[in-house]
Amino acid sequence: MPSSTLLNELIDALRCLPGVGAKTAQRMAFHVLERDRAGARQLAEKLAAAAERIGNCTRCRTFSEETICALCANPARDASLLCVVETPADQLAIEQATGFRGRYFVLLGRLSPLDGFGPGELGLDQLAARLTEGEVRELIVATNPTVEGEATAHMLSQIARQAGVRATRLAHGVPLGGELEYIDRGTLAHAFGSRQNLEE
Amino acid sequence: MPSSTLLNELIDALRCLPGVGAKTAQRMAFHVLERDRAGARQLAEKLAAAAERIGNCTRCRTFSEETICALCANPARDASLLCVVETPADQLAIEQATGFRGRYFVLLGRLSPLDGFGPGELGLDQLAARLTEGEVRELIVATNPTVEGEATAHMLSQIARQAGVRATRLAHGVPLGGELEYIDRGTLAHAFGSRQNLEE
Repeated sequence: MPSSTLLNELIDALRCLPGVGAKTAQRMAFHVLERDRAGARQLAEKLAAAAERIGNCTRCRTFSEETICALCANPARDASLLCVVETPADQLAIEQATGFRGRYFVLLGRLSPLDGFGPGELGLDQLAARLTEGEVRELIVATNPTVEGEATAHMLSQIARQAGVRATRLAHGVPLGGELEYIDRGTLAHAFGSRQNLEE
Repeated sequence: MPSSTLLNELIDALRCLPGVGAKTAQRMAFHVLERDRAGARQLAEKLAAAAERIGNCTRCRTFSEETICALCANPARDASLLCVVETPADQLAIEQATGFRGRYFVLLGRLSPLDGFGPGELGLDQLAARLTEGEVRELIVATNPTVEGEATAHMLSQIARQAGVRATRLAHGVPLGGELEYIDRGTLAHAFGSRQNLEE
């Protein structure tokens, strides 16, 4: 342990970041102290501000410091397409990878009663109410292909059916650039079973 | 980019940490916002305090929030052994790996005139003055085995000679657990040339 108390406290505090163990935290602390104190001050300020002021959009539940996030407030986004994701990170991944111009609904979790995530925590009442407004024509279910994500997808499709809205889900199969030899069996079996006609 | 301005600013600010690129910064920001706001607040506080209050020990130049660091102030450490290292991180590595009970002098850099690191920046005057005090009997040179570290070691040995103090340096050679087949040629050549008698 370094002999400075404050330095030890900084190293400990850095370990709240994902993937940062004792050794990396040490390296980070020494780095900012030796070479980037301005960066450290800036980071301190942004962390405090973000922890304090970033809440959730009241409409789509994603992270936002405003009551309605910029995406929900943007009239250019197509209100007839609503994509449901588990987390703001998933939303960002779709925004960055696809040309999707519709809107989102962020569950902030997945159905997992043992962890205390029931329909209420996921905002499913709010989602159901939104679907009955009549604006949404297609509910795109983009939950993760895990057991809990699949259960969530199932419940989402029920909600869509009750509201008379078409529900779709992301295609599963062999990833582009993947080699069959290295794909896990579950994915390969699914892709084989869901084979499609070759277009001419 | 996420639509929240503050979130973007946090992601940018996280990139001041070493080894943190755009993707990792995103993951870190989402992680603390979703799961550990208390940790984020704590980290903000420690970063600000450390950037503000951690200076350098006036005696050994390592990081310290006091005028004299805990190690220099500790009367149990042997004042006759002085180990010179380039950075506080190197000092910590030696503290953690060895049973060294002497004291340290931290250069906060290495001799590199082109980057503006001359003898003055490295505190060599201060070191020379300390050697003439007569307390130090052995100067252990633990600079890195790089070109600049070697140049620094050379200058340190001159300073020790002028003060009539014995200078030693860390042994170089094959790392323990290393396999000869995978050791770089320079290290292997050095280890071969510096071979020692097998003790019976």
